Amino acid sequence: MKKLINAVENVLIEQLQGMAAAHPELTVNLDPRYIVRAGAPFAGKVAIISGGGSGHEPLHGGFVGHGMLTAACPGEVFTSPTPDQMYEAAKAAASDAGVVFIVKNYTGDVLNFETAAEMVHGEGFKVQNVIVDDDVAVKDSLYTAGRRGVGTTVILEKVVGAAAEAGYDLDACVELARKVNSYGRSMGMALTSCTVPAAGKPTFVLGEDETEIGVGIHGEPGQYREKLRRVDAITETLTHEILNDGPYKRTLREWDRENATWIERDMTDEPFKSGDAVIALVNSMGGTPVSELYAVYRKMAQICEARGISIARKLVGPYITSLEMQGFSITLVKTDDEILKFWDAPVLTPALRWGM
Amino acid sequence: MKKLINAVENVLIEQLQGMAAAHPELTVNLDPRYIVRAGAPFAGKVAIISGGGSGHEPLHGGFVGHGMLTAACPGEVFTSPTPDQMYEAAKAAASDAGVVFIVKNYTGDVLNFETAAEMVHGEGFKVQNVIVDDDVAVKDSLYTAGRRGVGTTVILEKVVGAAAEAGYDLDACVELARKVNSYGRSMGMALTSCTVPAAGKPTFVLGEDETEIGVGIHGEPGQYREKLRRVDAITETLTHEILNDGPYKRTLREWDRENATWIERDMTDEPFKSGDAVIALVNSMGGTPVSELYAVYRKMAQICEARGISIARKLVGPYITSLEMQGFSITLVKTDDEILKFWDAPVLTPALRWGM
Repeated sequence: MKKLINAVENVLIEQLQGMAAAHPELTVNLDPRYIVRAGAPFAGKVAIISGGGSGHEPLHGGFVGHGMLTAACPGEVFTSPTPDQMYEAAKAAASDAGVVFIVKNYTGDVLNFETAAEMVHGEGFKVQNVIVDDDVAVKDSLYTAGRRGVGTTVILEKVVGAAAEAGYDLDACVELARKVNSYGRSMGMALTSCTVPAAGKPTFVLGEDETEIGVGIHGEPGQYREKLRRVDAITETLTHEILNDGPYKRTLREWDRENATWIERDMTDEPFKSGDAVIALVNSMGGTPVSELYAVYRKMAQICEARGISIARKLVGPYITSLEMQGFSITLVKTDDEILKFWDAPVLTPALRWGM
Repeated sequence: MKKLINAVENVLIEQLQGMAAAHPELTVNLDPRYIVRAGAPFAGKVAIISGGGSGHEPLHGGFVGHGMLTAACPGEVFTSPTPDQMYEAAKAAASDAGVVFIVKNYTGDVLNFETAAEMVHGEGFKVQNVIVDDDVAVKDSLYTAGRRGVGTTVILEKVVGAAAEAGYDLDACVELARKVNSYGRSMGMALTSCTVPAAGKPTFVLGEDETEIGVGIHGEPGQYREKLRRVDAITETLTHEILNDGPYKRTLREWDRENATWIERDMTDEPFKSGDAVIALVNSMGGTPVSELYAVYRKMAQICEARGISIARKLVGPYITSLEMQGFSITLVKTDDEILKFWDAPVLTPALRWGM
């Protein structure tokens, strides 16, 4: 295992110490582990808090700052953070305006964030959970029931973070977050595996000329393996899977504050259609250079244009990664005036910065 | 060779087409190849132009935009661009205020940019070349005489680009650029090799547990190979090499506009000393995840603090890469009020953006 680490058991804590040293505008708490904006809580503003297994950097810690997340809870590599991390992060970050937890759809994360929401509710804060489930590659996987949560998380955290900064109340933040999730679809692929430090060996093994189409961000299996094809052909597969995806019905679980219980209701994503404008993310899995991402962008943009989809904004780079895995993912999120306004709003975080 | 490409011969052109699609605020010319800010030339402003072999993205094309480069010339992968690229880029970018060519110290680049400067001079433009030679690992290498040009290039392009934007004239831009280069030192290391598409096989071969200390950005040899050590130990080696580096004397070649000839003079870099403030770059070679860079940052910051060096600003991420190589480099650039002012100035490029 060739990694820039000291001892396996200290990987996460030392990386967090590095973040603390590099970003004094963040407060990095090491026990329990969370990253919170210095100066939090901010009176009258909803706290937007996310978290998940580490290894997907800059997600989520790199997105803490003005106009994006108020706090983030890093779990061990590819492992959900614990409810006490989320609860302590919320206590550090929450004003009377309440807390929205942004949760990628993996079973451990969902359960732990639900427990945390109940604890935060017990402290007297308004709270709601929003699940991101945007990966069209598989329904039900090793790590989750339903679709996995991937690249739309990045777009959602930016947009909803800006809305909270602008003074949206909790219900408005939640409604916007559910809309962004409903508008977003993603799919990824891997050229190589990655190695979790504690495991010491690759999560999976691909042959010299094999790729995994539809791979998850933990290296979990996708749709199929195939011989390495040209980038245009791979990009066509992923982009068409995203654009051809039909209506997707999910069951939302919502925290009923009045009755202190979880209730369920259905919500359906509508497919993309000609005339839509999107925010596009061409994301590196961590080990793929940005130059190759631009080859992906080229073909994706051609397909979008041919299908009447206009790309209103874009990100090209490593934003939701799988350690050193080589590969990429594409995320398209339908946009509208409200989403664009908050996308363009100033942001000041380690990994996304503009307007400030 | 596992890469996101179509045909080997089209790698560069298709990546440039992707950049053009993603960044309509740039004009990407394909024959000859250069990237220039839309709207150039800008009256009264010095054009800052760089270039070099491709494969180091986002350097240089990703740094074209407001407050940084006016244009960039990408060569084939790890191969110098040609004088006609530089000449055509200059004609597209230059106002009467003239042109500064920023050149990393590799023999082919230096020669071709000198030829280009003579051609640009022949067109009646004021022109000067500035060489970046900041790599303390080796003096004289496979690719160059003197020190190689690496990470200081990123800092220099930001600072001098902002100065040009603010209206510095050509001589002032050149003086500032030479100061930044004189203030900067870098060193890198590799965990793995990289593969140039046209070669189809790794540039060099490292054993399962070997690293290359002092590696160049083309995978050229460094100081020595050794067994993989802990990240703290590797970071100590690189940081101390940078901080312990003594006075470095180089011979500058300057274009004498009056006599249309190259003249030489000596310039010496002073060592770092306690009390210095620096801009620090912890750079990924392309395949190393940002999480591991923060482990490097942690130790580097501890060493700087212990030696009385304060880190005034920092960048952590992939800024000057070697395709998919795993590894990192550290660059420290002594700073002062003038450099900090231009570092903090607004910038709007694909890879660096703030204040806009």
